[in-house]
Amino acid sequence: MDDECIFCKIVAGEIPSEKILENDDFVVIKDVNPKVEGHSLIILKEHYETFMDMPTELYGKFLETAKEAAGKLGAENFNLVVNNGKVAGQLVSHAHMHILPRKETDNFKLNV
Amino acid sequence: MDDECIFCKIVAGEIPSEKILENDDFVVIKDVNPKVEGHSLIILKEHYETFMDMPTELYGKFLETAKEAAGKLGAENFNLVVNNGKVAGQLVSHAHMHILPRKETDNFKLNV
Repeated sequence: MDDECIFCKIVAGEIPSEKILENDDFVVIKDVNPKVEGHSLIILKEHYETFMDMPTELYGKFLETAKEAAGKLGAENFNLVVNNGKVAGQLVSHAHMHILPRKETDNFKLNV
Repeated sequence: MDDECIFCKIVAGEIPSEKILENDDFVVIKDVNPKVEGHSLIILKEHYETFMDMPTELYGKFLETAKEAAGKLGAENFNLVVNNGKVAGQLVSHAHMHILPRKETDNFKLNV
């Protein structure tokens, strides 16, 4: 755990969050600044700065957890986004993935 | 193989592409309409419509192939994007992931 890391504090329960799913390696919480309804974050429990830094052994479970989160969120259509590195827009230096449930009426357009 | 699917035709070599990486399950090609320099697509060789439809056994290798592609592209900073379903902006109904190498000077901002 990194004492300065907001995601480590969320994993440890020191900062409250709206948890939708948890397993041995990941916790899924609602994003506090959602781009769309249900926008959530799949957060690695252990602290690694980026997707590139995290153990590749967890990659399968990372996406399995995303799939499970889509189910929990009732999302048939969704975007998964990993921003790797500050220059790529990664705001918190603790590996995580965004999931954005999508609806035809959500007025959001992902630019990729 | 789906005879009407452009990605199946790319995998089969019936449509030319700029291939940067290939393994047993995935092929990585440059996107023909790149949002940034090096914008590439990690395409499942077998035809499944979406991320939700593809075998979860391949999820680990999907991200490992993305990591390897980042290395090939020389990208320390990058975005990974999966659009699952038409409403989420999935343009080709064959499971794939975008990788966008990022530079401070690229004038692109992903809106997640």
